[in-house]
Amino acid sequence: MSHSIGEIAQALGLQLAGDASIRIKAVAEPGDAGTDDLALAMKPDFAADLSKGAARAAMLWADADWQAMGLEGAILAPRPRHALAGLSRMLDRGPGFEPGIHPSAVIHETAVLGADVSVGPFTVIGRDVRIGAGSVIGPQCHIGEGSVLGVQAELRDGVRIGARITIGDRFISQPGAVIGADGFSFVTPEQSAVERARDSLGDQGEISAQAWARIHSLGAVTIGDDCEVGANSCIDRGTVRETKIGNGTKLDNLVQVGHNVVIGDSCLLCAQVGVAGSTRLGNNVVLGGQTGVGDNLTIGDNVITGGGTKVLSKVPSGRVMLGYPAVQMQKHIEIYKAMRRLPRLFSDVAALQKSVPKADENS
Amino acid sequence: MSHSIGEIAQALGLQLAGDASIRIKAVAEPGDAGTDDLALAMKPDFAADLSKGAARAAMLWADADWQAMGLEGAILAPRPRHALAGLSRMLDRGPGFEPGIHPSAVIHETAVLGADVSVGPFTVIGRDVRIGAGSVIGPQCHIGEGSVLGVQAELRDGVRIGARITIGDRFISQPGAVIGADGFSFVTPEQSAVERARDSLGDQGEISAQAWARIHSLGAVTIGDDCEVGANSCIDRGTVRETKIGNGTKLDNLVQVGHNVVIGDSCLLCAQVGVAGSTRLGNNVVLGGQTGVGDNLTIGDNVITGGGTKVLSKVPSGRVMLGYPAVQMQKHIEIYKAMRRLPRLFSDVAALQKSVPKADENS
Amino acid sequence: MSHSIGEIAQALGLQLAGDASIRIKAVAEPGDAGTDDLALAMKPDFAADLSKGAARAAMLWADADWQAMGLEGAILAPRPRHALAGLSRMLDRGPGFEPGIHPSAVIHETAVLGADVSVGPFTVIGRDVRIGAGSVIGPQCHIGEGSVLGVQAELRDGVRIGARITIGDRFISQPGAVIGADGFSFVTPEQSAVERARDSLGDQGEISAQAWARIHSLGAVTIGDDCEVGANSCIDRGTVRETKIGNGTKLDNLVQVGHNVVIGDSCLLCAQVGVAGSTRLGNNVVLGGQTGVGDNLTIGDNVITGGGTKVLSKVPSGRVMLGYPAVQMQKHIEIYKAMRRLPRLFSDVAALQKSVPKADENS
Repeated sequence: MSHSIGEIAQALGLQLAGDASIRIKAVAEPGDAGTDDLALAMKPDFAADLSKGAARAAMLWADADWQAMGLEGAILAPRPRHALAGLSRMLDRGPGFEPGIHPSAVIHETAVLGADVSVGPFTVIGRDVRIGAGSVIGPQCHIGEGSVLGVQAELRDGVRIGARITIGDRFISQPGAVIGADGFSFVTPEQSAVERARDSLGDQGEISAQAWARIHSLGAVTIGDDCEVGANSCIDRGTVRETKIGNGTKLDNLVQVGHNVVIGDSCLLCAQVGVAGSTRLGNNVVLGGQTGVGDNLTIGDNVITGGGTKVLSKVPSGRVMLGYPAVQMQKHIEIYKAMRRLPRLFSDVAALQKSVPKADENS
Repeated sequence: MSHSIGEIAQALGLQLAGDASIRIKAVAEPGDAGTDDLALAMKPDFAADLSKGAARAAMLWADADWQAMGLEGAILAPRPRHALAGLSRMLDRGPGFEPGIHPSAVIHETAVLGADVSVGPFTVIGRDVRIGAGSVIGPQCHIGEGSVLGVQAELRDGVRIGARITIGDRFISQPGAVIGADGFSFVTPEQSAVERARDSLGDQGEISAQAWARIHSLGAVTIGDDCEVGANSCIDRGTVRETKIGNGTKLDNLVQVGHNVVIGDSCLLCAQVGVAGSTRLGNNVVLGGQTGVGDNLTIGDNVITGGGTKVLSKVPSGRVMLGYPAVQMQKHIEIYKAMRRLPRLFSDVAALQKSVPKADENS
Repeated sequence: MSHSIGEIAQALGLQLAGDASIRIKAVAEPGDAGTDDLALAMKPDFAADLSKGAARAAMLWADADWQAMGLEGAILAPRPRHALAGLSRMLDRGPGFEPGIHPSAVIHETAVLGADVSVGPFTVIGRDVRIGAGSVIGPQCHIGEGSVLGVQAELRDGVRIGARITIGDRFISQPGAVIGADGFSFVTPEQSAVERARDSLGDQGEISAQAWARIHSLGAVTIGDDCEVGANSCIDRGTVRETKIGNGTKLDNLVQVGHNVVIGDSCLLCAQVGVAGSTRLGNNVVLGGQTGVGDNLTIGDNVITGGGTKVLSKVPSGRVMLGYPAVQMQKHIEIYKAMRRLPRLFSDVAALQKSVPKADENS
């Protein structure tokens, strides 16, 4: 598969400069690029490496002086990183699943598959499942009874969707994701030590060992349009109502979304993020890798957290948070600088105490 | 499937008030409830929403004035959250797996399955495996040779149980859990930098690159009765002895239990918790989400950790811990308040230093 | 399967003492050992328990007085922990997969399998895959089109390898690992709030909700020789170039390696570690459990992190790091001690302020 750079520029609505007929088969970093590659030099910093490679053409920023770089042609993009979205979509060779419905797949007779749906080997599709047209269901997937997928779903291998889950159009799931496992909800016959410790901020009171009774998850999961779930990530079903994820929200790998959680539109949850039960995230929330959000909290729209942030209380809209416990990023940087200067502070105070010998007597 | 509220109250041993014949099909939150739903209004706060919904009946706290809420009937529970355990069990529609042993399953001729065991499509059951009566083994599971499951196990799809694992009665595993992978244990020919850094609290000494030799895991995993393991969680086998999990202990999703770990009875490990190799947890321990516990530590009975806690040293029984490194929760709150006031402290000390110009000379 | 202790000592190149003909079937801790077990008493501390067990033979440190311990024979090792690597390899009974190529496996006609390769039930092997001689591919695995595995690979059940992945010799993967999922890379049409928050260290500027465009992952993953990947761990493909893992590097369970990451040789990444996109790790790096490393960072050779460390900036070679944000371990211990003394410091300063009443006036 190859494309001329003229075709690419036209398809992406970008400006072409130089020889439109140059054909490329792949993209490459400037220093690695061969003559069949389109070099990606999104910033002036990266263009310096063009001379180390053999690229004839590159994608560059809007006013780049491509001729001075020794290129024969260029695609000029006002925001090259955004242009890469479209370009990478054109060049993606995909997972290579075989088309059609593999004869080994176990598809319940009541399941309804739209036009041009493919199903990989050893996949199991339950009773009353509905799958939208143009969907690609990979090998070794399981879709539980009564679940619904919109059009053009892409499930990689080994995706596990529980019973009665509803998912919108153009859903993408990486391998091994589990959508609709039971929530983690247990209760003791009498008030538990955990409940007491929460109420008292740390005192668990009289200890009496109790067994945990299981609260079953009667709710399901609802996911909007244009969502993506990463490899081995987990979204639990709700207890009474549904766990919900809005349109355009993307989850990275190994992310945990607890029971009853509600996530808004266009959020990004980076790898290994965990959101505990019944918490609500607004729209356009971005949680950095390994962020944890406690249960029963409200996180406003446009909140951003840095990597490793542990959110233990509610966060108003628009805040940028960092740290454990999470504080606003500017505050965190201030505290962090102070912490590094702490040992010095102790010696300063000790010196002062020697200078003011009667401090204790006067206090 | 529907139940009269009279049947429900009787089955759960709860008090019925009003019209026992009202039939319900599902539960709902008060504001969402339709006429076929049993509204769940466990606290007075939630009852206010009953008027927004159309529920004829509700589950309420013990002395609730159900008639004043406009209901025709009510189930009154002294601890409604605990009553929800039984109620949700009655109403759970389950994963919808087909009954029976699917013809595609590969079951070794030496495996012994108890009465009424079902096995899903594409599941593999190894040599000498024994599975207790009434168990439901989902699709695409793997149970390694010599492993034993007690009665009434419920394995969801894609559960992976290694060789020679022993699991008690009424075990539940969510999809994708891995029980009995090899432990992560490597050793260098000479003392490694890690060993030196531990001994010296931070100095890794002379650096010499060494390759890692693998220590194979000769032990297995033993899990008690009434345990549950969450989606995509991992419990590694022991090196020489077994990794052990006591009765009634529950693990949430994406939890890691390292080799040789011993966990007591009735513990809860919330999502993304990690317990490193050879650590011992007592009974009734509750680890909040994303808690990490270092290797070779002892955590006493009834210890509770808040979300994100990183436990780097042993913890006596009964402690409530929070933070990184973990300290008692009250101490953590005290330290945290002090940290937020640190910038002010620095300016106070600077002011003092100006007031006491001879501090350094006197010291 | 049993071995004489003479055979074992010879195979491992260790010194034998006493009766070489004693046969053992397994290893055990000293207090648990039966007469058919080789007791492992690697340190004098552990030897005390020998009298509680029934071992006739033990593996001991180099100059151990085995006769005084009541043993009939002993294997003496200068570094017993390293000797355990070889010993455990000899005694490992393995996962118990059936040999041969299971008839249910779906293997593309263009795939090339070396001599003595076994393939488990319900495994799918794609177009143009090549698998080296002596490899054991477990049940329910998926190997995507064009991927290459070296000799003697061991894939446990349910391992997922994407398309066009290259893996060296003697690769081991625990169950459920996902190698070659798509990277998590999204871009907004205009500069996003996240980009602004990073540039300004916390101020996300004017907020305007934007949808995320997906950047497809055109790169693949390359893994060296003698690597191991833990259960349910994830290694994402690169965006333009490849994600790379060097020779002899081992990943524990539930580890996340983001797109474009480059990891050197002989590294250990413990459970639940996350390395964000485009970060580079040197050789012999050891990351403790739940360590997080931010994106686009450089971590030098021989860096070690303690459990839970969050690395937010680059780390020079040879450093031992701990904490959030990561600092050198000695510095962390100093800061931590100071933090615990903070409440006292506040009262000391308050006392000083009372003693120096004119502080503010003089400043």
